[in-house]
Amino acid sequence: MSLYGIENLPYGVFSRPRGERRLGVRLGSSVVDLSPLGGLLAAPTLNPLLAAGRAQWTAARAAITEFVSRGADRIPLSDVTLHLPFEVADYTDFYSSEHHARNVSAILRPEAPDLPPAWRHLPIGYHGRSSTVVVSGTPILRPHGQLGDGEFGPCRRLDVEAEVGFVVGVPGRRIATTGFEEHVFGITLVNDWSARDIQAWEYRPLGPFLAKSFATSVSPWVVPLAALASREHQPQDPPPLPYLQPPGPAFDLRLSIDWNDTRVSSPPFASMYWTAAQQLAHLTSNGADVRTGDLFASGTVSGPERDQVGSFLELTWNGAEPVKLSDGSLRGFLADGDKVTISGTAIGAAGVEIGLGEVTGTILA
Amino acid sequence: MSLYGIENLPYGVFSRPRGERRLGVRLGSSVVDLSPLGGLLAAPTLNPLLAAGRAQWTAARAAITEFVSRGADRIPLSDVTLHLPFEVADYTDFYSSEHHARNVSAILRPEAPDLPPAWRHLPIGYHGRSSTVVVSGTPILRPHGQLGDGEFGPCRRLDVEAEVGFVVGVPGRRIATTGFEEHVFGITLVNDWSARDIQAWEYRPLGPFLAKSFATSVSPWVVPLAALASREHQPQDPPPLPYLQPPGPAFDLRLSIDWNDTRVSSPPFASMYWTAAQQLAHLTSNGADVRTGDLFASGTVSGPERDQVGSFLELTWNGAEPVKLSDGSLRGFLADGDKVTISGTAIGAAGVEIGLGEVTGTILA
Repeated sequence: MSLYGIENLPYGVFSRPRGERRLGVRLGSSVVDLSPLGGLLAAPTLNPLLAAGRAQWTAARAAITEFVSRGADRIPLSDVTLHLPFEVADYTDFYSSEHHARNVSAILRPEAPDLPPAWRHLPIGYHGRSSTVVVSGTPILRPHGQLGDGEFGPCRRLDVEAEVGFVVGVPGRRIATTGFEEHVFGITLVNDWSARDIQAWEYRPLGPFLAKSFATSVSPWVVPLAALASREHQPQDPPPLPYLQPPGPAFDLRLSIDWNDTRVSSPPFASMYWTAAQQLAHLTSNGADVRTGDLFASGTVSGPERDQVGSFLELTWNGAEPVKLSDGSLRGFLADGDKVTISGTAIGAAGVEIGLGEVTGTILA
Repeated sequence: MSLYGIENLPYGVFSRPRGERRLGVRLGSSVVDLSPLGGLLAAPTLNPLLAAGRAQWTAARAAITEFVSRGADRIPLSDVTLHLPFEVADYTDFYSSEHHARNVSAILRPEAPDLPPAWRHLPIGYHGRSSTVVVSGTPILRPHGQLGDGEFGPCRRLDVEAEVGFVVGVPGRRIATTGFEEHVFGITLVNDWSARDIQAWEYRPLGPFLAKSFATSVSPWVVPLAALASREHQPQDPPPLPYLQPPGPAFDLRLSIDWNDTRVSSPPFASMYWTAAQQLAHLTSNGADVRTGDLFASGTVSGPERDQVGSFLELTWNGAEPVKLSDGSLRGFLADGDKVTISGTAIGAAGVEIGLGEVTGTILA
């Protein structure tokens, strides 16, 4: 049974050789061209549909479902190029896995291994660079930077961060957690590539900058929230302040990380401490607005076990405990030529398992 | 003698009542409509001119100078509304005043009052929010946020940061310091409003987030680099790494901060440690690209004296030493109804003093 059946229908932007960009949905290992449906679905990017709001999202999904059911033409994925599915406005990244935050504190700040003081009171986040958000498959050039006092050169501790991204449709400010489904259209997989040596040297006191800004990869498919089952979030201690309540929906997404041909980790999104609805409420609580095309990412998804972590920093404990890949080679961080693929599945709204696509990238020197 | 004579001609976007947005240049207390010149100058925003590159910038300035000299129509500034002069792509903020960085360390981190370890090795910076960059005159709603464990409410320590912004015209990556004038079109004044109580609670370890993202105000006039005199930058110790050399031009800009009707500070831009060319080189050194409309700001401009600091955090030493305004009232941080105006002048390329416009904002509850 396909992970990309009619219960899923994630949106993407594709082109055929010498053709223009079109909206499509994935069906099995094909894409269905949505341009015959006209209107918002005839655009070359998701943004007009994103901006149209939830009633239009529902109507579009119904129309597409019927279109596909009637036997719309399928184009094999091997015949198309997939593009960034939407134009990114502001890109924000959170830090909402407690396992990840505790691991990072223990590895990078052994003198202060606890969670940062505000961590359980608010979803800590920061702004990233929009210009370098790229679609899955885009080669990742190893970044250069200052690696410490006196050194400038290619990053030696190049890492991944497996995350889930949330794509904002309807603009807003001071968005209550109960408004999440009115403003957020869907999800994408994110690899927030990270240069750990650059980060360690630059991040005090204003946070990560060049360690993250060289590339952020996203999957070519945006899975609409309507396709996903949700459930109640786990209790939080201490209880969040009123503007972060109720927590909003939790999603039972299962991610996987393949390092070349070896599956090295399977991070469980259900283990996240803060929900996406809380992240959006926090992000807009000061009066800041979000726009159509805003992307906010969950932060690295790490579960409690070593084979559930979302970064190689954690997987190899900062390189001290290398992993053995299936070809017998050992890795602490990424080598030139390495390919990393983050993929995911979820329980869909219809109760069947659905695919979240994948985000992949190969390191070039 | 006007600060806005023919030697200056900063660019802005204006509209008349019920009229459309047009490009203009400021001349005295008037604006000259550039749309009769056609082409890039007939656009409703600076972005097409920004993207066109230095040769076009030079040609446009020559054409405008001639147009103005021939006696082009002037529209009183009182008859127009001024808008954000360009569409902001990514917004980045630096931290390049040593006086400011030392003051902040002493005030906020008395246990570690020195400069951060990397401070003299690289221009520390972070990404900000593009969606909330607003034009001078936009009212500033006092932000809400978490003020510490258990508290959510209106910010009590609302502050300003007087900065100089640099507007990127031509996209690029790995831009050498010698390429600064090929990529950067001009400058704008920036007020990076800051909520110090929100900042103190949220910033570890990923930097300022909601403390800054509610609003960043810019002046309505972009002064082209061609209008500014430049000179050699002061020596830096230790010598910067090769990718940050030569330092590029220094600009002798004199800022002023008026708190309601009282001039409280006059920050000297010449005292900055890192140059804008070094900031741009650093920003793009990892492989990240800048786009047309990118805005990067200098960081708070503070000179060595108390009446030269660029923030009220420093001016009142975190509220401990309030300032007396001309109406006799005392201030630690901003009260509702307060108005702050940052203005500036420079020595122009023609040797005469020119105006940089002003960026103003009034605090609303």
